[in-house]
Amino acid sequence: MQLSAKKIAALLDGTVEGDPDVKVDRPSKIEEGGEGSISFLGNPKYEEYAYSTTASALLVARDFKPKKPVQATLVRVDNVYGAIAQLLERFGEAYERQPGISGNAAVAKEAQLGEGVTVGAFSSIGAGSTIGAHSIIHDQVYIGRDVTIGAHAILYPGVRILDRCQVGDHCILHSNVVVGSDGFGFTPQEDGSYKKVIHVGNVILEDHVEIGAQSAIDRGTMGSTIIREGVKMDNLIQVGHNVEIGAHTVIAAQTGIAGSTKIGKHCRIGGQVGFVGHLEIADGTQIQAQSGIASDVKEPNQALFGYPAFAYRDFVRSHAVFKRLPELYKKLSALEKAIRPPSKP
Amino acid sequence: MQLSAKKIAALLDGTVEGDPDVKVDRPSKIEEGGEGSISFLGNPKYEEYAYSTTASALLVARDFKPKKPVQATLVRVDNVYGAIAQLLERFGEAYERQPGISGNAAVAKEAQLGEGVTVGAFSSIGAGSTIGAHSIIHDQVYIGRDVTIGAHAILYPGVRILDRCQVGDHCILHSNVVVGSDGFGFTPQEDGSYKKVIHVGNVILEDHVEIGAQSAIDRGTMGSTIIREGVKMDNLIQVGHNVEIGAHTVIAAQTGIAGSTKIGKHCRIGGQVGFVGHLEIADGTQIQAQSGIASDVKEPNQALFGYPAFAYRDFVRSHAVFKRLPELYKKLSALEKAIRPPSKP
Amino acid sequence: MQLSAKKIAALLDGTVEGDPDVKVDRPSKIEEGGEGSISFLGNPKYEEYAYSTTASALLVARDFKPKKPVQATLVRVDNVYGAIAQLLERFGEAYERQPGISGNAAVAKEAQLGEGVTVGAFSSIGAGSTIGAHSIIHDQVYIGRDVTIGAHAILYPGVRILDRCQVGDHCILHSNVVVGSDGFGFTPQEDGSYKKVIHVGNVILEDHVEIGAQSAIDRGTMGSTIIREGVKMDNLIQVGHNVEIGAHTVIAAQTGIAGSTKIGKHCRIGGQVGFVGHLEIADGTQIQAQSGIASDVKEPNQALFGYPAFAYRDFVRSHAVFKRLPELYKKLSALEKAIRPPSKP
Repeated sequence: MQLSAKKIAALLDGTVEGDPDVKVDRPSKIEEGGEGSISFLGNPKYEEYAYSTTASALLVARDFKPKKPVQATLVRVDNVYGAIAQLLERFGEAYERQPGISGNAAVAKEAQLGEGVTVGAFSSIGAGSTIGAHSIIHDQVYIGRDVTIGAHAILYPGVRILDRCQVGDHCILHSNVVVGSDGFGFTPQEDGSYKKVIHVGNVILEDHVEIGAQSAIDRGTMGSTIIREGVKMDNLIQVGHNVEIGAHTVIAAQTGIAGSTKIGKHCRIGGQVGFVGHLEIADGTQIQAQSGIASDVKEPNQALFGYPAFAYRDFVRSHAVFKRLPELYKKLSALEKAIRPPSKP
Repeated sequence: MQLSAKKIAALLDGTVEGDPDVKVDRPSKIEEGGEGSISFLGNPKYEEYAYSTTASALLVARDFKPKKPVQATLVRVDNVYGAIAQLLERFGEAYERQPGISGNAAVAKEAQLGEGVTVGAFSSIGAGSTIGAHSIIHDQVYIGRDVTIGAHAILYPGVRILDRCQVGDHCILHSNVVVGSDGFGFTPQEDGSYKKVIHVGNVILEDHVEIGAQSAIDRGTMGSTIIREGVKMDNLIQVGHNVEIGAHTVIAAQTGIAGSTKIGKHCRIGGQVGFVGHLEIADGTQIQAQSGIASDVKEPNQALFGYPAFAYRDFVRSHAVFKRLPELYKKLSALEKAIRPPSKP
Repeated sequence: MQLSAKKIAALLDGTVEGDPDVKVDRPSKIEEGGEGSISFLGNPKYEEYAYSTTASALLVARDFKPKKPVQATLVRVDNVYGAIAQLLERFGEAYERQPGISGNAAVAKEAQLGEGVTVGAFSSIGAGSTIGAHSIIHDQVYIGRDVTIGAHAILYPGVRILDRCQVGDHCILHSNVVVGSDGFGFTPQEDGSYKKVIHVGNVILEDHVEIGAQSAIDRGTMGSTIIREGVKMDNLIQVGHNVEIGAHTVIAAQTGIAGSTKIGKHCRIGGQVGFVGHLEIADGTQIQAQSGIASDVKEPNQALFGYPAFAYRDFVRSHAVFKRLPELYKKLSALEKAIRPPSKP
């Protein structure tokens, strides 16, 4: 898809400075540029690149005053970051699929597909399942029995939605996500072996949830594992049985949440964080990457860090001393020698 | 599937108190309840919910004495937890598959399938492979060449069993598990590049092994990676080449075990634990979540914690002081000032 | 495949001592052995096994002088490790596929396949994509639109290469690898929800890259996520959008790299390491398993350890004192009592 600077300015409510007919077919970073691309100057610390970039067009703020000559055609807008996001959406449209059901898909007669649904090759949709209007089921996706998928959802190749799980409207599940695997529940037997606890619950993803590639969401033992509206999860995340994640919480890659833990709304959780099971985490909690959360967080909007985690600031101060522990040890030994305290104080 | 309280009592060797004809179609947690569900009171700390639950029936201990009126029909049993596990199995049966080979599967002529085997759509079974009686191969499963799958095994959608690997009887492999990927072995070359070490070994899963979604078990370079009888592994676990995991060991999600490490029997390993390669871990070892194991564990039944890990109790005590390090540092500085020890002691 | 000791000696430029006609069909570890296998004595600390091994043949150094009788036929070579690697390749050839396009694959008319390409059952190849000569696309692989796969590449079952990504010559992608999932990018909205940033970039894997099972490589927001020549990555690794990994860097399992971080050449990175985003890591950096990297590494060839990481040696020394913190605390308290410093120093 090619767009002229003039067309882009019209789209973004901007003004052109330079050749209004120059054409671009992709966005680029200002430090990478490239002919035929449109770049952007958002952060002033990249300003130098504006004078050397090879991009054909450049999005800049309405009030940007160049200190040197700029080769690229300028498109001036009110909000550079908002404009670039809008432009990404426009370029993204070029890659959209035409709806239709592949002749190589296995769709059960008893499944119901809404208007404008896409189903790719080698995908299975089981009996009793429903796919909402305009949802895109890519190739090689598995949708079990009695599953509900909302409208305008996107399931990338290799996604598995097991029996009786529910996926809301506008959800995006990236490749190889598993929704509805059994939780990790076993009863120890007298002979030292373990007996499986049968899992009859399900998983509910509310609307506008996005889940990263290779993540796994276990079903409830009974009842549901629930991911609330607007939650965004990165790749390779583990969510145990009967976990609940509050609305608009974001979680970075490789984090794991053990069974029955409840995480609040609007939390921000770093990568590789671990939560033990049966915790309650207050709304607005912020957790640094790699932290280990082993107890409830009762007060909202705290920042935590460490393994096991405590207050972010306190961890940072303790860690600063940790780095100097060998020095501390020497000082203490020197003091001991100097004083020779009585052995029985 | 609907069951009456009377029928449930017969099944669990219990007695009914209330309406014996009330019908339920699913289990529920006592704090969630819901009409048409059967809940249970196992832990006395949840007793208050017994008086407010909306469940239609309630499993309680034989000797439970209500302090207030209970709406739900009671089913009294000897062992509440055993009864609920039995009931979960009964409800789970409702979801079982009918056996049969999908017309959309690619089964090699030279493969052998036992009695009552299920093979789902878009699954491949390679030449020389054998599937034991009553095993369920779901949709989109890959079984390579010369693979052996035991009887009564369940392979969920997206499982990959690569050439020459062996899966025992009653094993359960959750969605997207990979068994038999190459180990991570490379020989450094003089020019700084790496040359792949060809892996000709395999993976052996003994009977009653369960492996969580998205886990990867690498094949031996030569010889086998072995997961012994009754091992239970959670989701997103990494097992390197030539690792051996002893019988009835349980491992929580996202743990990684580097090549050639041998883990004993009846160990309990938390989530996100890491093991370096070539270790020997004694039977009955218990390891806290997120610990890093960098050396052999010779004495059985120890509890370990930390990064790198040491004795659980010692770690907890060291961590308690770690939280107070800034305070310690101040105290030490104050002491130094008070004493001014000679600079050359 | 069976090979005689004589044939193996010819292959490895070695000499036979014992029965030149003894046949073997697999390699084995010297401590495991087994009739019909060929084992090897590389590390002198395993010498005792040479006298007890049940292997039929044994690779040893040209100048090996047995101290006791050896049952196995000896094959003497100059370089035992080189010889075993060569032998593994020879056995590995026995498992190679015959080229050909499965009748069950969905290959778009507009895709181009080179000479001798293999495409397995239930694999999809989209319009505009190109597969180089002699590449092996196993079963159930997804290759989207406008994807380029080089020559002699191997994509194991369940690999997903999404639209517009590029895979170089001789790359090996293990089962269920995802290349080109969207990065984790969202713009916070005023109402506390998040809006997805559309990702129009791609992923470029240069030649000779190997990626372990279940790993995920996100595409660039704009521009590319780039894995340079000869990089070797283990299983379950997460690579964020616009990351760049330098040539011949090796990364162990379950490591995660957040968006826009640039890692140098010839680095060696342990398992379960985490990198925050937007870092620059110098060439030759070595990072211990489970470390957390939160700031740039400017000087090449450093060794790092810890959470957050600092110099390896310093971490080891600080950790040694960490284990003795309770003792330090007691000593400090005793000193304080002995001295009773003035409360206002």
